[in-house]
Amino acid sequence: MAGSNTGTIFQITTWGESHGKGVGVVVDGCPSGLPLSEEDIQIYLNRRKPGQSKYTTPRTEADRVEILSGVFEGRTTGTPISMIVRNENQHSKDYSDIARCYRPGHADYCFDAKYGFRDYRGGGRSSARETIGRVAAGAIAAKLLKEMGISILTYTKAIGPVSIDPNRFDAAQIRQNPVAMPDAQAAKDAQVFLDQCIEAQDSSGGIIECVINGVPAGIGDPVFDKLDASLAKAIFSIGAVKGFEIGDGFAAATARGSENNDSFVPQENGPLTKATNHAGGILGGISDGSPIVFRAAVKPTPSIAQLQHTANADGEAVDISIRGRHDPVVVPRAVVVVEAMAAITILDLMLRNTTAKLDNLKKIYE
Amino acid sequence: MAGSNTGTIFQITTWGESHGKGVGVVVDGCPSGLPLSEEDIQIYLNRRKPGQSKYTTPRTEADRVEILSGVFEGRTTGTPISMIVRNENQHSKDYSDIARCYRPGHADYCFDAKYGFRDYRGGGRSSARETIGRVAAGAIAAKLLKEMGISILTYTKAIGPVSIDPNRFDAAQIRQNPVAMPDAQAAKDAQVFLDQCIEAQDSSGGIIECVINGVPAGIGDPVFDKLDASLAKAIFSIGAVKGFEIGDGFAAATARGSENNDSFVPQENGPLTKATNHAGGILGGISDGSPIVFRAAVKPTPSIAQLQHTANADGEAVDISIRGRHDPVVVPRAVVVVEAMAAITILDLMLRNTTAKLDNLKKIYE
Amino acid sequence: MAGSNTGTIFQITTWGESHGKGVGVVVDGCPSGLPLSEEDIQIYLNRRKPGQSKYTTPRTEADRVEILSGVFEGRTTGTPISMIVRNENQHSKDYSDIARCYRPGHADYCFDAKYGFRDYRGGGRSSARETIGRVAAGAIAAKLLKEMGISILTYTKAIGPVSIDPNRFDAAQIRQNPVAMPDAQAAKDAQVFLDQCIEAQDSSGGIIECVINGVPAGIGDPVFDKLDASLAKAIFSIGAVKGFEIGDGFAAATARGSENNDSFVPQENGPLTKATNHAGGILGGISDGSPIVFRAAVKPTPSIAQLQHTANADGEAVDISIRGRHDPVVVPRAVVVVEAMAAITILDLMLRNTTAKLDNLKKIYE
Amino acid sequence: MAGSNTGTIFQITTWGESHGKGVGVVVDGCPSGLPLSEEDIQIYLNRRKPGQSKYTTPRTEADRVEILSGVFEGRTTGTPISMIVRNENQHSKDYSDIARCYRPGHADYCFDAKYGFRDYRGGGRSSARETIGRVAAGAIAAKLLKEMGISILTYTKAIGPVSIDPNRFDAAQIRQNPVAMPDAQAAKDAQVFLDQCIEAQDSSGGIIECVINGVPAGIGDPVFDKLDASLAKAIFSIGAVKGFEIGDGFAAATARGSENNDSFVPQENGPLTKATNHAGGILGGISDGSPIVFRAAVKPTPSIAQLQHTANADGEAVDISIRGRHDPVVVPRAVVVVEAMAAITILDLMLRNTTAKLDNLKKIYE
Repeated sequence: MAGSNTGTIFQITTWGESHGKGVGVVVDGCPSGLPLSEEDIQIYLNRRKPGQSKYTTPRTEADRVEILSGVFEGRTTGTPISMIVRNENQHSKDYSDIARCYRPGHADYCFDAKYGFRDYRGGGRSSARETIGRVAAGAIAAKLLKEMGISILTYTKAIGPVSIDPNRFDAAQIRQNPVAMPDAQAAKDAQVFLDQCIEAQDSSGGIIECVINGVPAGIGDPVFDKLDASLAKAIFSIGAVKGFEIGDGFAAATARGSENNDSFVPQENGPLTKATNHAGGILGGISDGSPIVFRAAVKPTPSIAQLQHTANADGEAVDISIRGRHDPVVVPRAVVVVEAMAAITILDLMLRNTTAKLDNLKKIYE
Repeated sequence: MAGSNTGTIFQITTWGESHGKGVGVVVDGCPSGLPLSEEDIQIYLNRRKPGQSKYTTPRTEADRVEILSGVFEGRTTGTPISMIVRNENQHSKDYSDIARCYRPGHADYCFDAKYGFRDYRGGGRSSARETIGRVAAGAIAAKLLKEMGISILTYTKAIGPVSIDPNRFDAAQIRQNPVAMPDAQAAKDAQVFLDQCIEAQDSSGGIIECVINGVPAGIGDPVFDKLDASLAKAIFSIGAVKGFEIGDGFAAATARGSENNDSFVPQENGPLTKATNHAGGILGGISDGSPIVFRAAVKPTPSIAQLQHTANADGEAVDISIRGRHDPVVVPRAVVVVEAMAAITILDLMLRNTTAKLDNLKKIYE
Repeated sequence: MAGSNTGTIFQITTWGESHGKGVGVVVDGCPSGLPLSEEDIQIYLNRRKPGQSKYTTPRTEADRVEILSGVFEGRTTGTPISMIVRNENQHSKDYSDIARCYRPGHADYCFDAKYGFRDYRGGGRSSARETIGRVAAGAIAAKLLKEMGISILTYTKAIGPVSIDPNRFDAAQIRQNPVAMPDAQAAKDAQVFLDQCIEAQDSSGGIIECVINGVPAGIGDPVFDKLDASLAKAIFSIGAVKGFEIGDGFAAATARGSENNDSFVPQENGPLTKATNHAGGILGGISDGSPIVFRAAVKPTPSIAQLQHTANADGEAVDISIRGRHDPVVVPRAVVVVEAMAAITILDLMLRNTTAKLDNLKKIYE
Repeated sequence: MAGSNTGTIFQITTWGESHGKGVGVVVDGCPSGLPLSEEDIQIYLNRRKPGQSKYTTPRTEADRVEILSGVFEGRTTGTPISMIVRNENQHSKDYSDIARCYRPGHADYCFDAKYGFRDYRGGGRSSARETIGRVAAGAIAAKLLKEMGISILTYTKAIGPVSIDPNRFDAAQIRQNPVAMPDAQAAKDAQVFLDQCIEAQDSSGGIIECVINGVPAGIGDPVFDKLDASLAKAIFSIGAVKGFEIGDGFAAATARGSENNDSFVPQENGPLTKATNHAGGILGGISDGSPIVFRAAVKPTPSIAQLQHTANADGEAVDISIRGRHDPVVVPRAVVVVEAMAAITILDLMLRNTTAKLDNLKKIYE
């Protein structure tokens, strides 16, 4: 209840600051018997690693994960899985400029207001580096979901004014361009746009989209832990996210009922399907068996080299220029964080759902 | 963890179905000593009561609340406050048409998939009537927040294509028109549009906006229980919400950092302010002392009289026309539900924040 | 987190004061499909009802339960089950004597210290009447456990100096004597002893024992939610309980390892058994398949007619004699409360256990 | 909810196995501004370190703690404090004898039943080594409590038949003898007894007592999170604990009300006191301002060299002699674990209590 813990059965606790000794996560409640290696985790961590292109911060860290507990003879034991990534450049910089200065768009002031003081080095706890723990936990969740036939596809839908064209959608592209777009042309255009941002000492926002296939109907716990509400919280807990929508989302606000309703369609064998998916796979907060589709709006990186007016901890007006190279857009590296949080959230609700019916219980205990 | 309970210190549990004996809520963790009467609650409930205009369902229920516990000699005792609203028209209708039919846009199919069967009368647990418990709890939270100088203003921002004009913004209008818009002209236009929807046996979506003043800087618990993430979940747990955004929200995705960043401004006396509020009052998941501003996108009412194709529980294709009169738009009555959930969420995080600093602790125990 | 809510999946929230409008409980997370009627609940409530013998308070309340939600067509729906018992004698007494006086052995002073004031009528929230909600919830839990082959036997083991003789153990006796002892002779002796207590305007403590059969091996979640730890909390949350032990309990403190260890014994078919059960069915916080055996020590009723010295809210020394007739021992009526809390606790941990193994998950989702 | 996490505001998550890479804990919700160093933690860890006398296992590990996060410039930041103790002898032993054998009195069989398999090396997750994380967290809790004037004294009350004599009580003795007894003579007698146990290839149980001074009246959250109930769970979650009692505990079962009730006594200045403390400082689940006194019964070490009959994972009868030297009694090393869990539990409830009164809230937000 202090904020660094989430989930109910599949429960994760992250810890660590940007320039402390390291960052990590404890995953509790992972079912036993899942084959798991550090490589399974590393693949995910590598997707958010810095220094992969000129659009990401050049901080060069290997971000190697070490599994400290909860895995024995290659399989999860059901006990807590503790993972750590040591920080390599702990003391690399002089922070005297931001130690007492409140950077616009950053959480510096809010942390001081809340806690009285803060670890100001590289943003401390509010650094995006905290998400390493989430991605490590998400790698486990995603592996477990895969065992149950569930797959998650996450990608950049837009960077600034450049959006992907659905007609050019090519999932194979996502890992082949530095902006994680499933559209080669849009990826090129986005890079041109980002070059302009860098040139202008400025940054850009964007939109991430996530599509989850294979979630059976029935997942999500009304009325407060609905699937969409739980996803909204999980995704909104990622820094820089300012908007979240499911299915048609904000477009539904201007639609009519006759346009927005999805007709159910009987199937010869197996569960019902829907003729359309305006709902994004969730009705009444419960999955309906269709693909789950959501989007997150990400604000532009607040660290920009342009001179900005602001205030410091002494209540004085000061000007600041954020030194060093920063990601001109956080979207491409945030894609895997969104995927991780989606996996964690859906898995937890699937674990909770096992006892919704007395019949299910009997399957376990008879 | 079963879904009908939310909050950590100020904790609420709702119960009840649309056509069962009643609906209600238990509020646990309300500080002792707050003056509280049934009238305090009723004022809020009346704002969501049906039958207030031709744009709301004519179901005529008084929705009178009874406080069953937790209040003694006019003040809260610190023990659970149980509240009930009895349903009046429990047996008013023949439900044979929807007992086995899956209405498009409704949760019927999902409840069956999850629980094996459902109380199909009027939507059962998935009915908007469930929100009565939330509103009753929200009335208490709002009263407590008021004691700490915090006020919440919630209103309809748009219905279908009709949006309010910021230049005509008039808060006094909100309770004076049936669509809860702070703009007399927009309210008229919206009603014209809704008349068209009714005529066409159709329904409309819309957008609700909420502005919260007076929240001190420092509220919200990173990294998972951030203020924005918690609000996102709370608002998304309301039926029909398909999108949520804070501050500039989705518009931030196309903004540049230099546009989106808010400069901090020192004040002679008192805490810092910001020159702009693109962030909507939250940075790094923690309140920054500026007004908190968010919006929710609400989908069109799924219950429409038009004939729709769908399937039933036997896997057969069927056509359905939803009989009876339904709200052509749920936005106006949902306004107070949004306000209630916002109040509950912010209060809970404020209660949690009391122990963020050792200095605070000493204020209590010394 | 405010104290009136317990459980993680099978989650209950009790509310109500002794002389308020009523007492009740909301049960969330009960699997759907369990046949359930008010009569199922009433049978349990009748076991704790006052006025059943001269050893219980003569307060005559029918304590009729009403199920308000969560049951449809005779079966649980998986949604919250709200239950209420209205208080009948709300205004029956003049409480001016205890309104500001702190009764020895009661929680009056502690409630004032915590909340600033209290509902002093009949003990308010600290009244044993609060347990009605627990018993109602326990009736549901017990019924569900029964579906899985688990039965709970609870009885009075001792009242003051009078203990049951294991050689005379007769379960059928428990419901046939007013002290709930499974030993006719001890029951008689206990009644003689209680008559002496009443004569002396005094009261007695006692011991309750509980034996649970049929719990499969594997239930309980180390390291903090062990089965024994969870039972300890549940039972200790019942007013007047001052001690709790599992298996040999305190006697294990003077035993040697060679005496206390239970040997595992292979079985031709089915799971292992143990040659002895000093452990009381729990090892390492997890059930081992043997009967679970625990005991609770109950203090003597604090309400006695003898004159007692104490203090009042004005910090003055006062003398008090608790008027009216009170149970000279709470043990017999507390037996069913212990049984209820045991059922709730074990069921919740069984529901949690369904996802301990990936193999179990696959049983549900394949 | 998976078992390795406890607390609501001051929340701890332990991880690690006996012979994995290490053990550790994440502490979330620690107020900011508390001075904290690794030395503060190490002092506590040293009290449970092995190899301190011939009555403890000779496993020689330095058990050096490393703080990985949450402390900046010597003070807690309010963000998660992650701590790790690396295991030094990970691969020191051949475990083929116990890999498939179920040791009597151990959790081997239960872990297999629950999870399908287990890390069998040194007991894996069920090893007492897991308590290192608890003790590290407890050191922080105890330091915070000390800031609020609360002190905890914990000691061995009895080992097998040897009990301390209250007339010889000398707190200074506790850290001066290897059995942690506050009575030099009893400590000598206990050692003689333990020598006999070792000689007989056997082990002994014992009793730990804990006295907590300075807790203000009002701590504890009825009805389920009462102070005594919360302590009961926390202490019972420690391996080998089989009984728990508060104040007079089981002796209250044979007492009369007139003996057991404690009279309140007015004080000239300051809060009420009580003439006696049969209640052990807790009434109605809430602290009453008197010292909190509780005891835990600890079973004899199950690892004994004597030959024992048991079964293996193949369902065969086998005989086993637990090789290596084990603590003949776990009580002395468990003393600091009990103290840690008491500190954690009381601190958490004190943090929760800050919002019990509206007046308290106003102290923070005005």
